[in-house]
Amino acid sequence: MSAEKINEQTRGVYIISPTPFTETGEVDFASTDSLIDFYFETGVTGITILGVLGEAQKLAPTEARAFLEHVMKRVDGRKPIVVGASNPGTDNLVRFARQAMDLGAAGLMISPQPFLKTDDQVFGYWAEVLTRLGPDVPVCYQDYPQTTNTVSSVGVLHRLIDAFPNFVMLKHEEGSGLPKITKLRERSDRGEGRRVSILVGNGGLYLPQELRRGVDGAMTGFAYPEMLVGVVEKFHAGDVEGAEDLFDIYLPILRHEQQMGFGLAIRKEVLKRRGIIACSDTRHPGPKLTARDHQELTELMARLQRKLHG
Amino acid sequence: MSAEKINEQTRGVYIISPTPFTETGEVDFASTDSLIDFYFETGVTGITILGVLGEAQKLAPTEARAFLEHVMKRVDGRKPIVVGASNPGTDNLVRFARQAMDLGAAGLMISPQPFLKTDDQVFGYWAEVLTRLGPDVPVCYQDYPQTTNTVSSVGVLHRLIDAFPNFVMLKHEEGSGLPKITKLRERSDRGEGRRVSILVGNGGLYLPQELRRGVDGAMTGFAYPEMLVGVVEKFHAGDVEGAEDLFDIYLPILRHEQQMGFGLAIRKEVLKRRGIIACSDTRHPGPKLTARDHQELTELMARLQRKLHG
Amino acid sequence: MSAEKINEQTRGVYIISPTPFTETGEVDFASTDSLIDFYFETGVTGITILGVLGEAQKLAPTEARAFLEHVMKRVDGRKPIVVGASNPGTDNLVRFARQAMDLGAAGLMISPQPFLKTDDQVFGYWAEVLTRLGPDVPVCYQDYPQTTNTVSSVGVLHRLIDAFPNFVMLKHEEGSGLPKITKLRERSDRGEGRRVSILVGNGGLYLPQELRRGVDGAMTGFAYPEMLVGVVEKFHAGDVEGAEDLFDIYLPILRHEQQMGFGLAIRKEVLKRRGIIACSDTRHPGPKLTARDHQELTELMARLQRKLHG
Amino acid sequence: MSAEKINEQTRGVYIISPTPFTETGEVDFASTDSLIDFYFETGVTGITILGVLGEAQKLAPTEARAFLEHVMKRVDGRKPIVVGASNPGTDNLVRFARQAMDLGAAGLMISPQPFLKTDDQVFGYWAEVLTRLGPDVPVCYQDYPQTTNTVSSVGVLHRLIDAFPNFVMLKHEEGSGLPKITKLRERSDRGEGRRVSILVGNGGLYLPQELRRGVDGAMTGFAYPEMLVGVVEKFHAGDVEGAEDLFDIYLPILRHEQQMGFGLAIRKEVLKRRGIIACSDTRHPGPKLTARDHQELTELMARLQRKLHG
Repeated sequence: MSAEKINEQTRGVYIISPTPFTETGEVDFASTDSLIDFYFETGVTGITILGVLGEAQKLAPTEARAFLEHVMKRVDGRKPIVVGASNPGTDNLVRFARQAMDLGAAGLMISPQPFLKTDDQVFGYWAEVLTRLGPDVPVCYQDYPQTTNTVSSVGVLHRLIDAFPNFVMLKHEEGSGLPKITKLRERSDRGEGRRVSILVGNGGLYLPQELRRGVDGAMTGFAYPEMLVGVVEKFHAGDVEGAEDLFDIYLPILRHEQQMGFGLAIRKEVLKRRGIIACSDTRHPGPKLTARDHQELTELMARLQRKLHG
Repeated sequence: MSAEKINEQTRGVYIISPTPFTETGEVDFASTDSLIDFYFETGVTGITILGVLGEAQKLAPTEARAFLEHVMKRVDGRKPIVVGASNPGTDNLVRFARQAMDLGAAGLMISPQPFLKTDDQVFGYWAEVLTRLGPDVPVCYQDYPQTTNTVSSVGVLHRLIDAFPNFVMLKHEEGSGLPKITKLRERSDRGEGRRVSILVGNGGLYLPQELRRGVDGAMTGFAYPEMLVGVVEKFHAGDVEGAEDLFDIYLPILRHEQQMGFGLAIRKEVLKRRGIIACSDTRHPGPKLTARDHQELTELMARLQRKLHG
Repeated sequence: MSAEKINEQTRGVYIISPTPFTETGEVDFASTDSLIDFYFETGVTGITILGVLGEAQKLAPTEARAFLEHVMKRVDGRKPIVVGASNPGTDNLVRFARQAMDLGAAGLMISPQPFLKTDDQVFGYWAEVLTRLGPDVPVCYQDYPQTTNTVSSVGVLHRLIDAFPNFVMLKHEEGSGLPKITKLRERSDRGEGRRVSILVGNGGLYLPQELRRGVDGAMTGFAYPEMLVGVVEKFHAGDVEGAEDLFDIYLPILRHEQQMGFGLAIRKEVLKRRGIIACSDTRHPGPKLTARDHQELTELMARLQRKLHG
Repeated sequence: MSAEKINEQTRGVYIISPTPFTETGEVDFASTDSLIDFYFETGVTGITILGVLGEAQKLAPTEARAFLEHVMKRVDGRKPIVVGASNPGTDNLVRFARQAMDLGAAGLMISPQPFLKTDDQVFGYWAEVLTRLGPDVPVCYQDYPQTTNTVSSVGVLHRLIDAFPNFVMLKHEEGSGLPKITKLRERSDRGEGRRVSILVGNGGLYLPQELRRGVDGAMTGFAYPEMLVGVVEKFHAGDVEGAEDLFDIYLPILRHEQQMGFGLAIRKEVLKRRGIIACSDTRHPGPKLTARDHQELTELMARLQRKLHG
């Protein structure tokens, strides 16, 4: 069974999943199952696997393939699964992308290679990738210059949207990038170019403002996906202030998670404490929490519970 | 009249002041006066002028000097004034630093030059600067690699603390840097090195966590200084959760202000809307708010008022 | 008396001058005189002062002004003087630029501010600067991303050339940038845009190849300007291989000078050893040569003499 | 049959090999054979495969394994083969490293992960990698911050040399890094730490100066390995000036090859024109030469022939 593919109208919350490991460092398939079940319970629209948060670049190709197959089988077409496929080599990227699509992926999440320096370099990179993937493979463009050092200007996004119909979604997470959303939306609203889906990253740190500017939801890894789901649903139901009230309750811990590098360890630890995964280890090289970091997280999680349950 | 100089025990809130300009681009001394009066009313401990937020690098030297003199005269020793003195040339740095100290500054805020690459390069830079300033000039070390690309390791900070008694304060604002605070405090708590004052930057985005880890307060430019003052006072009075409750009310707008680059324009605009400065323009090159950005700020400020006043 | 201003047809060698200091760190005007006399003897077309090599950012504004005045008086209109005017603040840039032009400068050398990230940001920066300078002030655009981290795409250069007639010259020194020259020349050769003068930097490391690709000469600080002059003259006289033969003799020491950061100290030391300036000190922060570095330079200079004089 | 492993005394020239592809983008094993034969004819000491020049990060793991096996079989222990093993994940790194050693590799070439920021971060990364590889696996530390943005200070290199006996070789190619060699050599000459082999990269751009400062040879990919071999042999035979004379003949084309990014395409094209590999294509994303770039290379290669053969 296969879920619908992502497209220009996709909205909702695609939660980005970490890859759970056992204490001996193997992929933990039991925790993967409970993690997927948990995501289903929170009401997310879809799941994105094998991104940076999923430590994809630290998996052996056989592990990545096994994890992908395991997730696809567990989900069994009940919800769309987007698969991270960024790769320093385009041959490798295309090969893995085809495997993922053949297994029923709803689309691919790809970020441009690091250190592309001009609009023409960005365009040239994507022209090759999007052409080789072909028109039937829908792509979510991960726009995250904080890790890639590749800045995608509004101009080059417009050029790519015009040229490649398989560019259907933007994962927007450029820092200080709220005006970028407005510029993209204004153009398609004026009928000057195709509308693409925009989901936001960065843990959802600016989610209410981004929804007001016209994004369709979030694709990010915040460890309390129920908040993301609630905020997006309330907003789309017209309860704009209610959405923001819910958001504000979680903002302190969201902001805490949203620390570059460090954040991955916090997210896995929250999921562990919530009883969803068995072990919060990341693979080397990766962040580790000290005793003091654990204490801090305990305080923040306790505050959240008080605010939620009084 | 001269206020006490900053030292290793300094605590509280040093608000970082922007430099107000008129609509024709001149330094606005009337707004400077009302800004200083406002800061006094909010109960800040001291004021820091001519930092990055103060657009110091875009002032003519004569303007910087005139602004400095004006502020010193207006404050007249009632509160300590820290003066930004970072400079690509050490001769220029020392010359301006001496002028500031002669006019009654409580100390200098200095960031290392950009792109220093190893502990030894960082140490070498500061050894020259701290030696030439001499032991009587207290220095606040601005540790802000997000703009300088110079990372100051805990190891090199320890070496500098041991070698230079005029290094009395750290303005801590390295991203994902909470563990750094703990390492610095643990060493001085064990008696292995001198304690220095630590004030935090980044708008205070992690202020409650940072206070719990042992910092003495904040030196930052958040446009609602009364929150910073309240949080630090409550915390030091033992009301740890009350401090965090107050903080959380302001967190949505704090997080909004805390966008790299963009943030300066938002801060000045908030101060303008609060009736404190006449014009929110920044000098070129600098950020500008669009109509959509203004609308967003209106929404966030209105939400803050509702949360404060029900 | 005033020399002709730079324009789109300017060709030849503009030597970039360091700022000589005395052993006590003051600007050394006597060495400045002998340096200018030396440059005249080598047959350079013009001189560029107050660039990065001139440590402009480490001079007090009064020193920069005094140095500028001194040079203009010494040269007395016999050759064109281009003046570095890059500045983090555009007000300061324009003010100093006007002073320089009033004193008889032939044009300004300006690099864009660091870390501009898209074509639109680059265009926006220059639009403000070039507009405020006005059509009568000819500008040399220093394209040196190795220090600014601002990459100027061929596309944005074309847009700026089309929009601003006072953009008359490109100082080309982007790394791995030879194809850029060809693209710029091909467009104006096709009559699709205005031709601008292109002079090359980077010590002239690729000068023969760049001349073959259509540049008009060099604007750089190599400590043996007579080579640059000879190569450009031979090339323009049609002796292409002779130009390259001359170049090759100097290439070992040119390559040695052309080490980022380190190079400034080597250039000043070569000029000192050649008897042209009295002291090779750079201002802090700046590079210093060790005894071993001095020995290495001795060996390279001796080899050059042997190759020149057998 | 297995060649001797690399160790602290290793000297000579280890040529870094590209990975040849066919016109349809497959690994070209026939060209691999002729490339290895060519390297043997030039007299290199050993060969290094699967580095950045070998486009290792763009090979499928099965391709990398097949290439490795093919090369090991062709060489059959007649010369040492160093294998690139850098990897974003340490598990993957160790797994591939063990495969390479089992197949008879003489050692591994590994660069630290990008963007490590302090001595402690660099040390921590290597401590894990070198510990997990174990004392019997000799490692060549690739110190190339131009691509990794990780700077390895002299201090942290000393700490690692003291702690890990399997760190036996430094591939030195930090820009402007000649003094670093001297500092490393001075320490071991004083008996304060273990001596390691130092081979230089960057195409050998400063090889004669580096030999004079005490390096043991080169590990780099210059397309005329016979020059590297000749220079190192002459130098070690005491003919210091003869070594430099030979070097100077090749310097113009060496400098041309040594352009970041662009260089890979030039090197492969030179090898193709010399009749050694069948096709000079690089995999996407990778540099391509224009017709104008080809013409330029023709001129430079013709000049080299004239200088060599009169």
